[in-house]
Amino acid sequence: MNPTLSLMSAHRTIRRFADVPLDEGDVERAVAAAQHASTSSNIQAYSLLRVRDEAKREELVELTGGQPQVAQAGGFFVVCGDQRRHALVAGRAGRPYEPNLETFLLAVVDASLFAQNLVLAFESFGYGICFIGGLRNRLPEADRLLALPEHVLPLYGLCVGTGAEEPRRRPRLPLEAVLFDERYPSDDELLRQLDRYDAVMADYYAERGKPGYDWSGGIARKFARRNREHLRGLYESKGARLE
Amino acid sequence: MNPTLSLMSAHRTIRRFADVPLDEGDVERAVAAAQHASTSSNIQAYSLLRVRDEAKREELVELTGGQPQVAQAGGFFVVCGDQRRHALVAGRAGRPYEPNLETFLLAVVDASLFAQNLVLAFESFGYGICFIGGLRNRLPEADRLLALPEHVLPLYGLCVGTGAEEPRRRPRLPLEAVLFDERYPSDDELLRQLDRYDAVMADYYAERGKPGYDWSGGIARKFARRNREHLRGLYESKGARLE
Repeated sequence: MNPTLSLMSAHRTIRRFADVPLDEGDVERAVAAAQHASTSSNIQAYSLLRVRDEAKREELVELTGGQPQVAQAGGFFVVCGDQRRHALVAGRAGRPYEPNLETFLLAVVDASLFAQNLVLAFESFGYGICFIGGLRNRLPEADRLLALPEHVLPLYGLCVGTGAEEPRRRPRLPLEAVLFDERYPSDDELLRQLDRYDAVMADYYAERGKPGYDWSGGIARKFARRNREHLRGLYESKGARLE
Repeated sequence: MNPTLSLMSAHRTIRRFADVPLDEGDVERAVAAAQHASTSSNIQAYSLLRVRDEAKREELVELTGGQPQVAQAGGFFVVCGDQRRHALVAGRAGRPYEPNLETFLLAVVDASLFAQNLVLAFESFGYGICFIGGLRNRLPEADRLLALPEHVLPLYGLCVGTGAEEPRRRPRLPLEAVLFDERYPSDDELLRQLDRYDAVMADYYAERGKPGYDWSGGIARKFARRNREHLRGLYESKGARLE
């Protein structure tokens, strides 16, 4: 296995961090390298906001559902889909700027390709990372706190720092349940793969003190009700269009 | 620079490929490593469909706007946001499955974190890659051709193969136009950075036989009209909800 593949394969989420600041040079090197991720027609529809202020980070712990690592990690960032640069240069050129679902999708994809490069770059320096999807729990409040202007869409947070734990890597779906050759499988084939995975995950959860828990059960509970129903309103209030 | 950072920094899109098939072991190793990308609550809301059939690939060249690499690259894949596994296990458990904009966003983000890992894994083996956003040009037809069932949302294509060109790397936005410390910059600050970038990109385009072209001008033209307005209809017809 080459070094990049080893790094990728060793990933696990770190939620406990040592009280060690990020090296500023590391941050710049990681972002600069991550910027070379693919981007649709070079539009680069993303920004990264670093939050340093301690009071703001404490408030974000609350807004993200009580995740202490948001305040404790060496660095906390917000990954944004960013259409503001586009709207600005369109305005300067006297042209209309016409967002729709396609431009929203471009921003989310661009930002996430960049974000994955970014976390791998940080991990290559020895840092641990944790995405904070909980940023969307109370996103209108988080957006106001961060003072993000029109066309800058906060998507998720990112903790980066020196890890203070060594969690076990979480097993993923069998390859056969994710990579399909020529045709999407039947429900029976798919459920057979998911049964295999449930057995693996039941062991994983039992080892972590959660006997009787598996993947399918967690998924069925998770999606039985809608979450974060404010997203569309917030994003549209910031100039995005989802039509 | 460590090997992962060097690899990331050296990325450029490859559009001309040698007639060399992918090594099947490489595909499995790349996908298995890429699956360790972060995923929200381990939902792994993505699938990768490999298209081998030559007639289908020729048809996809047409549907993606005449991109010959879709047929020529060693391998062609479709990256999908996949909520079908979730809907299936919810149904089996007798629970409702409730998609909304949040679940759509989860799928797009999960798929794109996975996809960036995947391309980096392929690049670490020496392959070149090219994302095909043009898959969304005529997405309802592409979706039918690929026979993707409900809750499997095609997002973009991916060509992987042995490169037959050595294009220059495309310069990215200055770091200062992407990474912001504590507060999002003013329009004046941002436009100053974009002017710097326009100068760099004007040189880049002039060298490639497109004098008088820059980044801002291209962006202003690109977003002056809406593209791919069928996306919402297609995704909602497949069970996604964007509310």
